[in-house]
Amino acid sequence: MTNPDTRSFDGYAAQQAGATLTPFRFEPDALGPNDVEIEITHCGICHSDLHLIDDDWQTSEYPLVPGHEVVGTVAHKGELVSHLELGDRVGVGWQCGSCHRCEWCERGDEQVCRDIVETCVGRPGGFADRIVVDGRFAFSIPDGLASEVAAPLFCGGITVYSPIRRYARPQSRVGVIGIGGLGHLAIRFARAFGCEVTAFSSTPDKADEARALGAHHFVSSVDDAALKKQRASLDLVVSTVHRPLSWKRYVTALRPDGVLCFVGALDEPLTLPTGLLLAGCKSVAGSQIGGRAAMREMLDFAARHELGAQVEVLPMSEVNTALERLRRNDVRYRFVLRRD
Amino acid sequence: MTNPDTRSFDGYAAQQAGATLTPFRFEPDALGPNDVEIEITHCGICHSDLHLIDDDWQTSEYPLVPGHEVVGTVAHKGELVSHLELGDRVGVGWQCGSCHRCEWCERGDEQVCRDIVETCVGRPGGFADRIVVDGRFAFSIPDGLASEVAAPLFCGGITVYSPIRRYARPQSRVGVIGIGGLGHLAIRFARAFGCEVTAFSSTPDKADEARALGAHHFVSSVDDAALKKQRASLDLVVSTVHRPLSWKRYVTALRPDGVLCFVGALDEPLTLPTGLLLAGCKSVAGSQIGGRAAMREMLDFAARHELGAQVEVLPMSEVNTALERLRRNDVRYRFVLRRD
Repeated sequence: MTNPDTRSFDGYAAQQAGATLTPFRFEPDALGPNDVEIEITHCGICHSDLHLIDDDWQTSEYPLVPGHEVVGTVAHKGELVSHLELGDRVGVGWQCGSCHRCEWCERGDEQVCRDIVETCVGRPGGFADRIVVDGRFAFSIPDGLASEVAAPLFCGGITVYSPIRRYARPQSRVGVIGIGGLGHLAIRFARAFGCEVTAFSSTPDKADEARALGAHHFVSSVDDAALKKQRASLDLVVSTVHRPLSWKRYVTALRPDGVLCFVGALDEPLTLPTGLLLAGCKSVAGSQIGGRAAMREMLDFAARHELGAQVEVLPMSEVNTALERLRRNDVRYRFVLRRD
Repeated sequence: MTNPDTRSFDGYAAQQAGATLTPFRFEPDALGPNDVEIEITHCGICHSDLHLIDDDWQTSEYPLVPGHEVVGTVAHKGELVSHLELGDRVGVGWQCGSCHRCEWCERGDEQVCRDIVETCVGRPGGFADRIVVDGRFAFSIPDGLASEVAAPLFCGGITVYSPIRRYARPQSRVGVIGIGGLGHLAIRFARAFGCEVTAFSSTPDKADEARALGAHHFVSSVDDAALKKQRASLDLVVSTVHRPLSWKRYVTALRPDGVLCFVGALDEPLTLPTGLLLAGCKSVAGSQIGGRAAMREMLDFAARHELGAQVEVLPMSEVNTALERLRRNDVRYRFVLRRD
């Protein structure tokens, strides 16, 4: 085992906005008393990684090592880390730190802590051989979950699990818009919750896939006549898409007390007559990732239901192939890099 | 007491859209087994009455007898009415009937029943000496509440009480936009709930009134700099206004998990970047009136807190004066007609 004080890590970085990733060696931060160093075995690829590489949010710093669906084993740990042992298999998602003092951290809603530390924003992420993070954001992976199907749970999974755990009950009728990295997990989670699941996609040939994932029904997300027929049929609609759709139709598709929840920001502002919300006491909500308690709960739930992501695994050295294909949406449904 | 089978009622009706009300005699429906006939003593005036008179919703039928904040005493009752006695003091709001069979009625959410019967839509309302309604929507008024301050609770009150009971807890920080017929009751209810209350109004000289009603803070609803300072300060904002405001600022004023709830439809569609909802897991909701259980709960709560509407009482014969002044928003905060 390397001496954590004199080591360097090897990863893949974009040297400037939009660049192809190239091998990159960097010095990690010193291991703090609450930190763990993880030897990475797998890292999922999320659309957010592309946004970071492309500096779409004007927050990127280069060289930029993406990756925030990290799975690996604990290689070193700080003196205050008592919940993990060396060799434990753990995962890390979008968030790898918080203040641990504010109201939201105390509530277990660390994802809304103002001092959130993001795994690959302003610090090197998981497209690397190792990573150092606050051990309180490294979550043990239940034995039943293989590393490659667990990795995408840490961002994509928790992103859709959060609104389902918040808004859905087993008897709910849940719609999922978009059958991709997030949507396919939303379908699986909602189905495992016991819900009646309707998948909405603009790609008609995904109907069979949606059913195989657990959807009871499939509706074209752009067929206005088909959407009209969904009137007052759903308790929760989770939208994973960023392109504008006929949101009025989706609100009208809600039953009383229903919620349309966005887990990804739309490219354009949402425009909606408020009268549609009043009639039926409906809401439009946003949700992003989840707190530590929700993360652990999701991992237990996923293991119990043998529910992971449907992935295509590529060696980490082929990261640029994966990114290029992801840009074309050529993936069913999540890429996971396996360290060579 | 009149024979309920051969009687006529006297009220005030608009004979056409926008017309001044004139005396109008009409034959009521026969008293059904679940119905009560109420001898009206008071009726509040709501903005919706103006909308109905003016046919703003293209649903009005003339002659139109407005009025849906009805208070009076039970004069006759059908053979199946067992929860009320003749002479009982009762109130009726916007809703005076539902199917009593659907899922929503069974849940106690009768306000979203598809077969909702509206007190003065397609049937004569409370600007009259008597009214016949389904007795299951006639609610006993606790002794502590005077009839004139109770009347506005049956529509204006339940409209703002519903989102407060749903979204607020005593420790919540609640904003109320608009200090009028609805807003002044929202301030009083939120204060009585134990909440920290911020009133928002475009009328700066309402600051003292807002504080007298129970608000801890007053903010101009149109002062952008002042709104900016409210960032992340409120758990619930109840909007009672219909004119567009800087909704982005109000969503930004929400704390994590916060809800912006509209109880009246805006004149223009709401436009909002969904990213504002994602960051902090916020929602925008709609709410309208409330079910029977909520109504009874509100009446008990109001009586316990000696909380009614602040009203100006006019004789029913002066209904046109009241309507004219309401059109100019010249009322603090609710007109109640007292039968001459």
